[in-house]
Amino acid sequence: MPPSQAPRTLTVELGERSYPIHVGPGLLGDSRWIQPYLAGRQVMVVTNETIAPLYLDRFKQGLPSDLDVREVVLPDGEHTKTLESVACIWDALLAAGFNRRCTLVALGGGVIGDMVGYAAASYQRGVAFIQVPTTLLSQVDSSVGGKTGVNHPRGKNMIGAFWQPRAVLVDTDTLSSLPSRELSAGLAEVIKYGLIRDVGFLEWLEARMTSLRELQTDALREAILRSCAIKAEVVAADETEQGVRALLNLGHTFGHAIEAHQGYGAWLHGEAVGVGMAMAAEMSRRLDWLAPSDVSRIRAVIDAAGLPLSAPASMTSDDFLAVMRLDKKNIDSRIRLVLLQTVGCAYVEEAVPNASLEGLLVDYPRI
Amino acid sequence: MPPSQAPRTLTVELGERSYPIHVGPGLLGDSRWIQPYLAGRQVMVVTNETIAPLYLDRFKQGLPSDLDVREVVLPDGEHTKTLESVACIWDALLAAGFNRRCTLVALGGGVIGDMVGYAAASYQRGVAFIQVPTTLLSQVDSSVGGKTGVNHPRGKNMIGAFWQPRAVLVDTDTLSSLPSRELSAGLAEVIKYGLIRDVGFLEWLEARMTSLRELQTDALREAILRSCAIKAEVVAADETEQGVRALLNLGHTFGHAIEAHQGYGAWLHGEAVGVGMAMAAEMSRRLDWLAPSDVSRIRAVIDAAGLPLSAPASMTSDDFLAVMRLDKKNIDSRIRLVLLQTVGCAYVEEAVPNASLEGLLVDYPRI
Repeated sequence: MPPSQAPRTLTVELGERSYPIHVGPGLLGDSRWIQPYLAGRQVMVVTNETIAPLYLDRFKQGLPSDLDVREVVLPDGEHTKTLESVACIWDALLAAGFNRRCTLVALGGGVIGDMVGYAAASYQRGVAFIQVPTTLLSQVDSSVGGKTGVNHPRGKNMIGAFWQPRAVLVDTDTLSSLPSRELSAGLAEVIKYGLIRDVGFLEWLEARMTSLRELQTDALREAILRSCAIKAEVVAADETEQGVRALLNLGHTFGHAIEAHQGYGAWLHGEAVGVGMAMAAEMSRRLDWLAPSDVSRIRAVIDAAGLPLSAPASMTSDDFLAVMRLDKKNIDSRIRLVLLQTVGCAYVEEAVPNASLEGLLVDYPRI
Repeated sequence: MPPSQAPRTLTVELGERSYPIHVGPGLLGDSRWIQPYLAGRQVMVVTNETIAPLYLDRFKQGLPSDLDVREVVLPDGEHTKTLESVACIWDALLAAGFNRRCTLVALGGGVIGDMVGYAAASYQRGVAFIQVPTTLLSQVDSSVGGKTGVNHPRGKNMIGAFWQPRAVLVDTDTLSSLPSRELSAGLAEVIKYGLIRDVGFLEWLEARMTSLRELQTDALREAILRSCAIKAEVVAADETEQGVRALLNLGHTFGHAIEAHQGYGAWLHGEAVGVGMAMAAEMSRRLDWLAPSDVSRIRAVIDAAGLPLSAPASMTSDDFLAVMRLDKKNIDSRIRLVLLQTVGCAYVEEAVPNASLEGLLVDYPRI
């Protein structure tokens, strides 16, 4: 392949738990990318019914031939992210007689990655796992941070562990099968990294958005690497999630309100975050941080990614506030928001003036 | 209380995860021993139906009055050590709306400690927990090492995590309600610590066995502290369980064979370990490490603890070998055993000669 398309590597620095993220085309079928990270001969590949027909054979063909490879194929969807699914993985590991030197592979999007990571964290008190994320969102989000877990009927991600992968293999070729709506949803998080911390990256995105949506390999590789690098910096600065890590939630407070009100799944997470970032930009303007031209610029890049800019017609100001008041980031019932001081620099607004917030929620355009 | 009975403290050194083990009478009813280790106001006490009527009220009376204290009372017994029981704890935490700053308390024996530790390790990706072990076995064994988890139909302790407590509170008064058979079973592990690493401690045990079985507070406190200190040294030297930590399994390979053949629960774990240590001593003599007088001495202290010395009448040599061949410590189908070079110094025999082992298993006295 031409050098412009060769895989490149980012190392997430975590002392003895440091690991590489390899990004580029053609990783799935090539054993060189996975062999160094296998703990032993026993490999359990976990994927779902959508991904298995597309990539499971190619992945298995890229494994060294002397391994004991088993597989678990789960149903697809956020509703499968349960303790019961993780117990299925444990059952399969025990039925296969796999020991502490086995390796779990998560082949799929964020749901698969979260479940397999937790299965690995708890099997025989912790075994190796490798992430092979196949959606843009999971490639730029779950690749860094070590969060694993499942949902409980009473709350998302309530049961889980911090558990780092041995390696993350991002094969950009897998994005060719991703529905364009999900590609756009992933781009929302990519744009977020530029907005909160790196105006140069935002400029780069503005110039390359067409290339990204056309799935040009070098553009995708660069966007994924820079996104992961920014997330790794933020996480390293705040592993315990007390301070700067909150900046990763730009657009998420408004976005979660949309997802919760509309029912999870009606809007994709990234779509809701796209609108949420546009709302956060407008809020930042009303608090005199951003100029109107900054808001226009931010709306333009969100729009160019194929994301919606308007909130759901059915949501009133009170609908937003009802969910936002329950946000875990709030302290003493004041609503906290991640806002922008400038394009490329986010901050946490500790006490958003109620009048300003309600004005925004009343005025903001609906679909 | 007289100074000879005041609680004493051992610190388990694990860097930023270091924690104290407080040992002595009267800890349960006294808030000074628990207050420094509470993460916040939310406290979930988990215990079982045997321990709750004996100690739950006393424990709760020893908590500061401004806390939000809830409780879960599970059935008693090894058969309850399942993922379903842990899920009950998670359900209770979520129903109470407990957040990441809650504290779980394990009030009971090893089964409760293992389950509550795992529940804490996985709730919201990890919360604080405090061990309050009420059996001698859990006081000298589960207090050190950070192993938590549950059984799976296909194997013991297959699902779990390494998760350290904030503190361990050993109230020696709780041993007054322990059946004497369980006290003896706990003493088997205490004797083990002397045999593998500390002949001075073994001499002390030989002199104080009557005091221990009569539940004299100062003797119990000393035996528990020295046992925990030896285990902490061994674990610190080998956190990943590759080498010296195997020495903690003295007597356990023979013992597990007895437990597995007789059905778990028919023999207490410590009873099987007692016979197992006597068998390991005899095996060590047959390999010319120990003198006959050493074997007699070891048998005498096991006997003085109220433990059996003879293997079950129904177990043939082949019954032992069938289980021992499956032991996780074996490498390439050779049977590995922890044996004694001298009284107070254990080693791992990598390849026990088959003829010697079979001779022992045929000759060893049965009940």
